[in-house]
Amino acid sequence: MTITLRPEPLTSESFAPYGDVIEAAAGREAAMNAGRFERFDDLCVVDPGDDGRVAVGIVRCRLATELPYPLNLVERHPLGSQAFIPLTPCRMLVVVAPPGDTVAAADLRAFASNGHQGVNYRPGTWHMPLIAFDPGQEFLVIDRAGEEANCDEHRLEERVVLVAD
Amino acid sequence: MTITLRPEPLTSESFAPYGDVIEAAAGREAAMNAGRFERFDDLCVVDPGDDGRVAVGIVRCRLATELPYPLNLVERHPLGSQAFIPLTPCRMLVVVAPPGDTVAAADLRAFASNGHQGVNYRPGTWHMPLIAFDPGQEFLVIDRAGEEANCDEHRLEERVVLVAD
Repeated sequence: MTITLRPEPLTSESFAPYGDVIEAAAGREAAMNAGRFERFDDLCVVDPGDDGRVAVGIVRCRLATELPYPLNLVERHPLGSQAFIPLTPCRMLVVVAPPGDTVAAADLRAFASNGHQGVNYRPGTWHMPLIAFDPGQEFLVIDRAGEEANCDEHRLEERVVLVAD
Repeated sequence: MTITLRPEPLTSESFAPYGDVIEAAAGREAAMNAGRFERFDDLCVVDPGDDGRVAVGIVRCRLATELPYPLNLVERHPLGSQAFIPLTPCRMLVVVAPPGDTVAAADLRAFASNGHQGVNYRPGTWHMPLIAFDPGQEFLVIDRAGEEANCDEHRLEERVVLVAD
C-alpha cells in the first residue's frame, strides 16, 4: 500500500500543532523608524533548550527534488526548535508529524507554503529533511547549537509518496 | 562642517569590531541531507543577554531612502544583539560606531553589502536605524525580547551625510 501525501495550504492555524509559520501577516504590522518601515514582531518561538544556544546558518540547495517524491524517513530535534526561512521567495513543501516516541505514517501531514513563508519546527516535531526545487535556493536556519546529540531519525516502514499540491 | 560617509565594502574582517556579516561564504560549506544541500553554520553570535529571549520578526520598507542621506542619529541596543537579513537579495548600507558611552562622528563608518549579506550588530554597537531603497523590501530581524528598555538613541551634533559607494 502506498500512502499519498498531498500538501494542504500552510497557515498558522493548520501548522500550530507542529510549530510556527514565519510570515509578515496583514493586520499585525506596527510602524517603526519614523514610518520608514512596518514591523511584524515575534513570529516564532525560538527554543534552544536549557543548555543550548541559538545558532544562525544558511543552507543552499545543490540537488533539486522532483515530485512525486518518495519519503523514506523523518527526523526530529528533541532539544531545540529549528526554523527555515527562504532567502528568496520560494514555495516550500514540508511534511510533519506530532512530537512523540514513534511516527505513524497515518499521522504525517504535508503543507505547501505560499512562497513568502518560513516554518519553525518546535522541539520534537517530526519532519521531512529539507527539500527544495531550485538549485541555488538558500534558506536561513535558526536552530540550537550544543554539545548533545540532537537529531533522531525514523525510517518509515510504509511506502509514502509526496505529490504536488 | 559636513562629514561625508562613503561606504566601504562589507566584509567579516572590516565589520568585526561591530558584529558579524551573515553570508554563505565560499570555502565554509559542508554537505547535509545526503548531498542535497550545502550548509554554512554559525554565521553570527546571537546574544539575547542573561535574561532576554531570542525574537524573530520581519520588517518591510514603506518609504525608500534616497542618497545622499542626512544622518541625524544613531541607536544602540545595550542588552542584546540585533541581526537584519534581506528576504530578497538587496544592497544594504549600514553605518556603525563602536560600543561606548558616547559616539564621536569621526568614529562612524559606513559599509555597503554585496546584496547577499546580512549583518548582526553585537550588543551596544551604535548603528544607523535601518534604511532601504525599495518599498516592499523585507528583512528578517533576530534580536532580543525582554521587559527592560533596550534602545538608546544618540543625536549627532555634527552634520553627517551618507553618500553612495
